[in-house]
Amino acid sequence: MTSREASGQRSETVRRANLSTILQELHLHGPLSRSELVSRTGLTRSAIRGLIGELASGGLVTEERSASIGAPGRPSPLSRPRADRHVVLALEIAIDSLAVALVGLGGEVLELQRVDRARGHLDADRLVDDLARLARPLLERQAQRAAVVGIGLSMVGVVRASDGMIRVAPNLGWRDVPLADVVARKLRLDVPVTVANDGDLGALAEHRRGAAIGVDDVIYVAGEVGVGGGVIVAGRRLEGAGGYAGEIGHIRVNPSGSECRCGARGCWETEVGERALLRRAGQRPTGGRAAVDGVFRAAAGGSPVALDALTATGEWLGTGLASIVNVFNPSLIVLGSLFGRMHPYVSAQVEQALSSGAMDAPGEMVRVVPAALGEDAPLLGAAELAFEPLLIDPAGWLAPRPALVRVAGA
Amino acid sequence: MTSREASGQRSETVRRANLSTILQELHLHGPLSRSELVSRTGLTRSAIRGLIGELASGGLVTEERSASIGAPGRPSPLSRPRADRHVVLALEIAIDSLAVALVGLGGEVLELQRVDRARGHLDADRLVDDLARLARPLLERQAQRAAVVGIGLSMVGVVRASDGMIRVAPNLGWRDVPLADVVARKLRLDVPVTVANDGDLGALAEHRRGAAIGVDDVIYVAGEVGVGGGVIVAGRRLEGAGGYAGEIGHIRVNPSGSECRCGARGCWETEVGERALLRRAGQRPTGGRAAVDGVFRAAAGGSPVALDALTATGEWLGTGLASIVNVFNPSLIVLGSLFGRMHPYVSAQVEQALSSGAMDAPGEMVRVVPAALGEDAPLLGAAELAFEPLLIDPAGWLAPRPALVRVAGA
Repeated sequence: MTSREASGQRSETVRRANLSTILQELHLHGPLSRSELVSRTGLTRSAIRGLIGELASGGLVTEERSASIGAPGRPSPLSRPRADRHVVLALEIAIDSLAVALVGLGGEVLELQRVDRARGHLDADRLVDDLARLARPLLERQAQRAAVVGIGLSMVGVVRASDGMIRVAPNLGWRDVPLADVVARKLRLDVPVTVANDGDLGALAEHRRGAAIGVDDVIYVAGEVGVGGGVIVAGRRLEGAGGYAGEIGHIRVNPSGSECRCGARGCWETEVGERALLRRAGQRPTGGRAAVDGVFRAAAGGSPVALDALTATGEWLGTGLASIVNVFNPSLIVLGSLFGRMHPYVSAQVEQALSSGAMDAPGEMVRVVPAALGEDAPLLGAAELAFEPLLIDPAGWLAPRPALVRVAGA
Repeated sequence: MTSREASGQRSETVRRANLSTILQELHLHGPLSRSELVSRTGLTRSAIRGLIGELASGGLVTEERSASIGAPGRPSPLSRPRADRHVVLALEIAIDSLAVALVGLGGEVLELQRVDRARGHLDADRLVDDLARLARPLLERQAQRAAVVGIGLSMVGVVRASDGMIRVAPNLGWRDVPLADVVARKLRLDVPVTVANDGDLGALAEHRRGAAIGVDDVIYVAGEVGVGGGVIVAGRRLEGAGGYAGEIGHIRVNPSGSECRCGARGCWETEVGERALLRRAGQRPTGGRAAVDGVFRAAAGGSPVALDALTATGEWLGTGLASIVNVFNPSLIVLGSLFGRMHPYVSAQVEQALSSGAMDAPGEMVRVVPAALGEDAPLLGAAELAFEPLLIDPAGWLAPRPALVRVAGA
């Protein structure tokens, strides 16, 4: 955004941008003292005092004396975002589970619930009904206190960014399902509903709250049946022209490989996804989570078959990562879900594949680490996404508005 | 960039940002009338008048009455960047040639010279001496009139962004050659020297001046012996953590493929580069440009061997592009150099590979076109890169400064 000298509107534009800057700092890094806000934003102390005052009177932040024991000079008041007043509802449709969470401004997870679900095809109405049923008690407990400012949904599928349409979700047998509309209709909270791909949201969450805080060029790779990912480029989410970018599981790595659920042949997913691991371990490829757990238990017990299956899968993991390193030159690769679990067993194979398969210059710069947020990363990413309208223009929330949650069906 | 209310400095910061906005608009889209600048920038007419006045008195732009015949109302003066006063020196080390150009503000190519060079290993001093010898007469013709504000160099190799170090250039047998330093020492123009990879610069040029103007998500792929590329993400160059991003020629597409010059096996380059084409056409893989020309002549004459070689190479081209489409979700793929020449022969294979290998959602959005700028794309990209300091902060150039070119050796 370029500063614009559009005379009349300028000071209002600057004020709104500055409110956004302050609130984003507090949301991501709070609590912060006024001195810290000065050094992080370049704004003057007096400007910050005024802006914090506005945000405080709108219920977005609180300010308190800091207990700066022993520090010389006047103590700098400490500001923190109010998790209790503005919340988002985060939802997730994962392959083996459904999850809901209420997350407060600042990222505090107020409540989170995850329930197993059986794999298989289910229609969107039914799944969203299940999510709404999970969400209702959480929302009721928060009523009278907090306003829900947005809904974010993490979806295991290919999502059109413009309207939250699920273009394809092989696990559920979906094609062109208007999921954001279904959620809006069923949840009836009258707030924006944003839907995004689970890999993209996992990347966002690990970048803001997990293993990749402060790192600008990040690849997040996660997998179960499918292999997904998300990419952070120069500190921002890679979205692509339609929101479909980051489908790194569908790089073709083996022209004589097996057929992929996407219709192509030899995608990376066919070599590193859970089915490939199970096949190599002598299990039924469709054995699902229980079978995968079995492989890890066997490996922990020293089973050569299980260890070999992990090793072979780790080699393919490294092969694909080497290509990704050449393409993106990331400084960090974060391994989530299945790959996070595999990491202790396959780190040598991954290192070896990176050093032989990636070019020296980008290869030397990259570290590979397991994810920090575990299976909740996509759900927490959905919460971050749902906060974006508030963070981009908090001024719109400073006018008086109803503070009550409208509970679906209430 | 967020607007900052840092009281004392604010108006100066805003002025500099606005000067930059105006100059960038004129550099990329000029000439523009004041009315067009108002609608493109959101600045007021009077602000624009003042800013144009400053840029004009600094010799960066001119303003003239427009001949708006038939349009109602007062004619809006037309501003254009002055190509004759501020120029950059663009240099290129390509696989078969060396090139130099003087490019004026606004992108006008004032002079351009390209000479063939034999392939093979040459040291950096010798090559840069050759470039300096080519550049000298151009610079002398411009002396007394224009100031050189920067040097940009396009290099066929892996370039560290921070200091223009060539990490590796297989064609020249280089490892860790401080090329920007060599250029600064030999050219002695006392201006910043920026070096970047030819694929990245080809992408930049096609995005700003060629086949991808106005498109935000673009992949540029070009190849000779090596296969390089550049990526535009949300309107900006993808650089990665060290400037090495975009090495799409080194996605591993065939685990049983042949050894690549990068040390890995089965990179895309080994299947779609010029050596693969020549091998398939029954030629010596190291036959170089003359042999490649021979294949295209034979194909134009209907030779089945040549046509089959192109077709098979086109299938691999499409296979790699499908992976790239899944990863980046671009709306445009621009085929440069070898692939631009191949395009008429292989467009059916590419379309077929994209429709069977890319996922539907991103696959439906992408168009594939030949490059518009031909072999000069990287050189013109180097010119764009060299203009960036001036475009980002023109205020620094508005103070009086010597207008003479200092010619190397003079």
